Amino acid sequence: MEVVTAIEELRRRIREVKAGGASIGFVPTMGFLHQGHLSLMERARRENDFLVISIFVNPLQFGRGEDLDRYPRDREGDLAKARKVGCDLVFFPEEKTLYPPGFTTYVQVEGLSSVLCGVSRPTHFRGVATVVNKLFNLVQPDRAYFGQKDAQQAILIKRMVADLNMNLEVVVCPTVREEDGLAMSSRNNYLTPQERRAAPVLYRALKAGEELIAGGERSPRAVVRRMEEVIAGEPLVKKVDYLVVVDAENLQEKDPLEGSLLLAGAVYIGKARLIDNIIVNLA
Amino acid sequence: MEVVTAIEELRRRIREVKAGGASIGFVPTMGFLHQGHLSLMERARRENDFLVISIFVNPLQFGRGEDLDRYPRDREGDLAKARKVGCDLVFFPEEKTLYPPGFTTYVQVEGLSSVLCGVSRPTHFRGVATVVNKLFNLVQPDRAYFGQKDAQQAILIKRMVADLNMNLEVVVCPTVREEDGLAMSSRNNYLTPQERRAAPVLYRALKAGEELIAGGERSPRAVVRRMEEVIAGEPLVKKVDYLVVVDAENLQEKDPLEGSLLLAGAVYIGKARLIDNIIVNLA
Repeated sequence: MEVVTAIEELRRRIREVKAGGASIGFVPTMGFLHQGHLSLMERARRENDFLVISIFVNPLQFGRGEDLDRYPRDREGDLAKARKVGCDLVFFPEEKTLYPPGFTTYVQVEGLSSVLCGVSRPTHFRGVATVVNKLFNLVQPDRAYFGQKDAQQAILIKRMVADLNMNLEVVVCPTVREEDGLAMSSRNNYLTPQERRAAPVLYRALKAGEELIAGGERSPRAVVRRMEEVIAGEPLVKKVDYLVVVDAENLQEKDPLEGSLLLAGAVYIGKARLIDNIIVNLA
Repeated sequence: MEVVTAIEELRRRIREVKAGGASIGFVPTMGFLHQGHLSLMERARRENDFLVISIFVNPLQFGRGEDLDRYPRDREGDLAKARKVGCDLVFFPEEKTLYPPGFTTYVQVEGLSSVLCGVSRPTHFRGVATVVNKLFNLVQPDRAYFGQKDAQQAILIKRMVADLNMNLEVVVCPTVREEDGLAMSSRNNYLTPQERRAAPVLYRALKAGEELIAGGERSPRAVVRRMEEVIAGEPLVKKVDYLVVVDAENLQEKDPLEGSLLLAGAVYIGKARLIDNIIVNLA
């Protein structure tokens, strides 16, 4: 497994791999790899000849006062995990490599960037779209893999790839959960043991909303109220950022509920902002 | 020469060409081809195995009240010229092909988009960057060719390619002029014979500014004043949009003048908004 930090070296290797006719699978990450990342990497490993992952804590997608400085990092652990999955190349750039002085170009997916997580994190998705666009141009993958846990991110990247005619397939993979239902996330690392025990409340709230819909409820307000009740039962939730049920493609409200729906939430527990979601398909 | 309108057909042909190892040269245009375009195409023809041009009047780069509806078009004439230059493929998409319903992703080159032409045309360069980004992703050229006449556009596209790590070389080619100095432009077509005779005043003004600098002047204000005087001598100039001397890389003001400078102007004559520029390199 190669670890590459420089752009010219990456380009040279990608050129060689493509010249040999190999297909490239790509998993962009911010590192501190958990089973969620590994499931993406394992699938990408199976479906492609050459597997590239990137590890880069992207400053552009963190707002002021967010957790850029304390975002967890584990270079050696990450490389060991990547090696074990059978990764061929890890791209591990420095900040100045991707954002040299004078950098001033941004990719903005309008509409999709300003709702849900985009309300409390107004520049987050611009940062995500921009860095993913850059990484796609560098790695030139045939397929890129994202987790359903970051639902809004996955929708936005699919939209960007379609809108900008980028030449790859975006594959969205199921959320990997702990045994108690908590979605895997590097940010779970921020939780104290007590907070960790409380954290599955978000998934339970989403499941309660899903059950209500399965029982025939078609009012988005009733579904949101049910989710809010579940969250309210957990005193360690400091603040609810949002709890919504929206159209799973354009993230807009839908009343009455119909078609493909995204139940999604973001809550603060201790130092962590946790997100989760489930998709419900009505006939 | 093939004329392709559908994205899937274009992708298929590009895949074949690249699989054969051929290099691709690309000239994006809005059609109504003149000698300026042809000089780009001739150079691209010489420097690449396979020559693609696109003809697309991009609505995204026209503001409200601008000349989108009356922008000149000449499909048959353009195709004859492209054939004569030895073009291999003309991509001639419809608007709905590049901007289907739901399209919402934009590329913004900040700073460079809001000065000079960006003041009176605030969404113009976002439209340019977005469509050129799309076309680069579709055509996947090794080299793309732009005219120095649209200096701000050329600088901005170079910046976008560098910032987003796009995998191609941007080649900027000298402005082609009529015998009296007027820069070639499809918009010269809007001029009446009398206005056409007045139009070279813009180039004369830029040359007067250049001469002043060559004579030792280092005050940007004095250079601009000289250019304004020349323009003022031509009553058919209805309005001056801007006349500036700025840094040729970042388009910012420089006082005293030094390094690589861009003398640029935009003026209205009759129904036409004409732009032109020259580069002056101080040791």
